[in-house]
Amino acid sequence: MRPPPLDRVRLPEARLTTALRRSLVEAVGGFHVRDDAETRVRHAAGRSYVDLLRLRSGTLDSAPDAVAYPGNAAEVLAVLRACTEHECAVVPFGGGTSVVGGVAPLRDGMRCVIAVDVERLDSASGVDAIGMTATLQAGMRGPHIEAVLNARGMTLGHFPQSFEYATAGGFAATRSAGQASSQYGRFDEMAAGLAMQSPSGELITDALPPAATGPSLLQALLGSEGTLGVITEVTVRVHPLPHVEHYAAWSLPDLAHGLDVMRQLAQDGGKPHVARLSDADETRAAFAMSSGRATPVARRYLRVRGQPAPCLMVLGWEGDGDVVGQRVRVASRVLRRAGAVGLGAAPARAWRRDRFQAPYLRDALLDRGVLVETLETVTRWSAVDAVRRAVRGALISSLSERAQPLIGCHVSHIYRDGASLYFTVLAEQRRGDAVEQWVAAKRAATDALLAQGAALSHHHGVGVDHSRWMPSAVGERGMALLQALKRELDPTGVMNPGKLLVASEPELTTF
Amino acid sequence: MRPPPLDRVRLPEARLTTALRRSLVEAVGGFHVRDDAETRVRHAAGRSYVDLLRLRSGTLDSAPDAVAYPGNAAEVLAVLRACTEHECAVVPFGGGTSVVGGVAPLRDGMRCVIAVDVERLDSASGVDAIGMTATLQAGMRGPHIEAVLNARGMTLGHFPQSFEYATAGGFAATRSAGQASSQYGRFDEMAAGLAMQSPSGELITDALPPAATGPSLLQALLGSEGTLGVITEVTVRVHPLPHVEHYAAWSLPDLAHGLDVMRQLAQDGGKPHVARLSDADETRAAFAMSSGRATPVARRYLRVRGQPAPCLMVLGWEGDGDVVGQRVRVASRVLRRAGAVGLGAAPARAWRRDRFQAPYLRDALLDRGVLVETLETVTRWSAVDAVRRAVRGALISSLSERAQPLIGCHVSHIYRDGASLYFTVLAEQRRGDAVEQWVAAKRAATDALLAQGAALSHHHGVGVDHSRWMPSAVGERGMALLQALKRELDPTGVMNPGKLLVASEPELTTF
Repeated sequence: MRPPPLDRVRLPEARLTTALRRSLVEAVGGFHVRDDAETRVRHAAGRSYVDLLRLRSGTLDSAPDAVAYPGNAAEVLAVLRACTEHECAVVPFGGGTSVVGGVAPLRDGMRCVIAVDVERLDSASGVDAIGMTATLQAGMRGPHIEAVLNARGMTLGHFPQSFEYATAGGFAATRSAGQASSQYGRFDEMAAGLAMQSPSGELITDALPPAATGPSLLQALLGSEGTLGVITEVTVRVHPLPHVEHYAAWSLPDLAHGLDVMRQLAQDGGKPHVARLSDADETRAAFAMSSGRATPVARRYLRVRGQPAPCLMVLGWEGDGDVVGQRVRVASRVLRRAGAVGLGAAPARAWRRDRFQAPYLRDALLDRGVLVETLETVTRWSAVDAVRRAVRGALISSLSERAQPLIGCHVSHIYRDGASLYFTVLAEQRRGDAVEQWVAAKRAATDALLAQGAALSHHHGVGVDHSRWMPSAVGERGMALLQALKRELDPTGVMNPGKLLVASEPELTTF
Repeated sequence: MRPPPLDRVRLPEARLTTALRRSLVEAVGGFHVRDDAETRVRHAAGRSYVDLLRLRSGTLDSAPDAVAYPGNAAEVLAVLRACTEHECAVVPFGGGTSVVGGVAPLRDGMRCVIAVDVERLDSASGVDAIGMTATLQAGMRGPHIEAVLNARGMTLGHFPQSFEYATAGGFAATRSAGQASSQYGRFDEMAAGLAMQSPSGELITDALPPAATGPSLLQALLGSEGTLGVITEVTVRVHPLPHVEHYAAWSLPDLAHGLDVMRQLAQDGGKPHVARLSDADETRAAFAMSSGRATPVARRYLRVRGQPAPCLMVLGWEGDGDVVGQRVRVASRVLRRAGAVGLGAAPARAWRRDRFQAPYLRDALLDRGVLVETLETVTRWSAVDAVRRAVRGALISSLSERAQPLIGCHVSHIYRDGASLYFTVLAEQRRGDAVEQWVAAKRAATDALLAQGAALSHHHGVGVDHSRWMPSAVGERGMALLQALKRELDPTGVMNPGKLLVASEPELTTF
C-alpha cells in the first residue's frame, strides 16, 4: 500500500468566498494565497499514523480551502482580521509535524478554513552574545536555527525527533521537548518571551529574566497550540557550543535498576544532556534490528554477565571538559553500583546517527501494512513502572486480535521529580477499519495512563486526539480558565477550532 | 520617634455587618473570627517603609474590619463565598511581609474588608523521598518548612530575607526568590502544583513533572497576589540536604569586573548557590559597618593590591563534595582572571549570620528619623550597569534636598540571561511629608528603570505600590488577559481589590 503522489490525492472542493480571497490577497499579496491541490494536500494533515493512513487512502475528507503565507507580523494580523470578519477558521501551520491532529483543517462550524503557513517568517535577530539570547521568527526550522546560532559559536540545544521540519513557532505553541532536554531544558524553559498575533491584536511579552510582575503571560501562551493566536516570534536563551561530547551506552540488568540510575542522575549532579533507557522489549528489538557484527557478541557477553533480559541505556554529556568530567565520574559511580555493564560508545553513536530517522522507518513499515504509532506521557518516579505496565497491558488487550503486538517503551526525558515514557507500537493493521483499530487502542492506553496519575502528554501536545481528556486532565475549572483566555484573544473562535480547549472526538473515517 | 504599642494604635471603626459576621462564624467558628484592635492592627499593613511610617504614626486610616482564620480549604471557600455574597473585600494574609502594599486593607468600593489569615493551614503532607516533592499548606512559614524537611534529610532551599515570617502561600502568590536561587531556583520554579480557592470554587493544578497539556495553569496562578483566590496548598520540588558548604568572599577591582564574573558563573558551570556582588558604595558602607578588627587591615591591603574602590562579592556553594569542588575550581579560574582578591570565609560567614537581620536594623534607623527603604529589579546582563546608574541618578536627584542620600546596590540573583539589582536607600527623613518624599523618589526610580528596559519587580511583586506601572510592564492587552482570568475566578471582584490587575495610585497620607 504505497502512498499516491500528492497531486493525485482527491480533495473536497475549496470553499473560499470571493470576498475572503480578496481580503487575504490584500493582506499578503496574490502570490501568497494559494489553493492549488498540492498546497492544500500538504496542509491537510500532520504526521500521526491516522494522518498517514488518510493521505495514503488517496482521498481526503478535508483540506484547507486555501493557504496564506504572511511575510511579517502585520500581515499575520491582517489575515486573522480578515478571517474573523469572514468567519473562516485559521490553522496556524509551522512544520506540519503534529502527531495529535494539531494541524487538522477543522471548520468546526465556520464557513471555511485556511492554513496560515509561517514559512516566510524565517530570520533570527537580536543575537545577544553577552546575555546569550536570540529572537527567532516563528517559521525557522530546527536546522536553520542551529546553523544561524552555530555560526556565532552558540546552540539552542533543542533536538526533538521532528527537528528537521518543526519550527520555532511550533516548538513554542506545543511546549516541545528535545532529546537533550535534561541539560538545555524543554522549549518552554528556553523561551524568554514571545510575540503573538491574535484576532484581538498583537500581544508581546517582555523577554527579560524571570520577574515578579504577576502571573506569567508567557507561560499562559506557550502550549496554546494555535487556539489563541499565531506566535510570530520567540526570544530564546541559548548556550555556547559544547567543547566536549561524551556519549556511551550501558546495559542494565533490569528496568528497575535502570530507572534507579536515571533518577539518581536527574537528582544528584551527574545529569547528562541525553538520557535514554529502553525496557527489555525495546532493547531486544534494538539488538535484533542492529546491523553491527558486534551485536550477537554483546548479547552473549551480557548473558554471561548475568543479564539475560538487559535494558539498554544511552547517556550523553556535552559542554565544558571539566563539567563533563565531573558528571561522568558521578554517573560512573551510580552505574557501577546498579550493576551496569558498559557497551562503549558505538551503540550511543548509532543512536545519535539515527535519531531523526524513526519517521522514515515508519513510512517503510506502513508500506507493508503494519500499524506503527507512538504515544507518550510523563509521571512521578514512584509511578513510572506502574504506568508503563498499565499502558502496555491496555495496548496488548486492545491490539491482540490476531498476533500479539510489539510494544517498546523508553524513558527519554528525566526530571528531578519524574520521567517521560515513550511507547512505540507495532501491530498487524486491520484493513477496512485501521483507524478505529488504532483509535480504540489509543483510547485504552490513554485511559490507563490517566488512571495511574500520569500526564495526558509529555511533549506531543493535545490537538484533536487528546482533547477529549482535557477536562479530566486540567479539571472543569481549569478548562473554564483556558476558555477565558480564548474569549479575550479570539472572541469569535476562529483560531484552530475543535482542538485543545474543547473536548472533541476525532472523526472516524473508514479505509 | 518610637512606635506606639500595637494596642494603642487608633483605628477606624470596624464595619462588619451582622449578617456577614454570622456567615463568617458559620464558616470558621466564632473563635476564628476576630476584630479586636491588636488583631486588626497586625493585619493592617505590610513591611514597607510607608507601612512602618503609618504604624508609627499611631493612627491608621484603614484596617481590616475583621480577620478570619480558616482551618482548611473548605473553610477558605466558605469564607470567600460569604464575602462574595456580602460584598466584602478579601485580603489573603500569610506572613504579612509584603513591601509593596500587597496586604493593604483596601475596600475599593466594597462594603467592608477582611483579612483571611492562613496561619492555621500549617502542615506538610505527601513528602516523597523518591520523587523529591512535598505538599505544603499555605500558612507554613520558612523555618517550619525547613524543620519538617530537614528532619527527612531534605531542604526546600528557599531563603528570602522574609524567611522567618513569610509563608508557602505567600511565596507562591508573589513569585518569591530566595538568596540561594541560582541553585535551587525561584519559588515559581520550585512549585510543581497548587490548590487555589476562588469565589468561583476550587482550582487544583496537577503536581506532575512538566507536560504538554496546554498553557500552564500553574504559572497563570503563581504571582496572582491574592487577586484571583487564596492559595491553600503548594506542592514543591525539594532537594537533599547538602553534604558540603563552601562560602567565601572576594574583592573585585570594580563593578564591571564583578559583573563579568557573575555572568560567567551563571553561564559557564561554576554556578554558586548564593551569589552577591555589592557596588563600590555598598561595599564601603559594609566595611564601615563591619565590627571586625580585620576590616581596616583588609581595606589597607586592598589599596596596596590596587583596589582603592573595591566591590565585595560573596559566593556560596552547597551540595555534593564532588560537584562543589568542580564548581569552586571553575569559579576560582574566573575570579583569578578578573583580578579578584580573596578575603577568605569570614566576611561570607558574617553575611550568612546576618542575612535575615536587615529588617531589624531598619527599625533602629527609623527610630532615628532616617528614611530607609529598598527597591529591586532585574534586567539583561548588557543593561545591568546602565540600569544601576539610572536608578541611582534618579534617587539622588529626588532625595538630595538637604544631604546627599546613601545608595547601595547589589546583584543577588543571577541568571543565564541577566541579573537582579537590589537598592538600599538611606536619606534624611522629611518630617511632615515623609510619605510623599519616598513616593516621589520611588516613582523617579521606577520610571528610570522601566525606561532602561528593566522589569517592574524581580521578587517584591506588584501589590499597590507598583500597580500604576503594570499596563506599561505587560501592555494593555496583557492586562486584559489577566483581567479575563480574574473575571472567571472572581466575577464580583472581592479578591484583593485595588492591586496588581488595576493601575492604582497609592493613597498619600501625611504624617
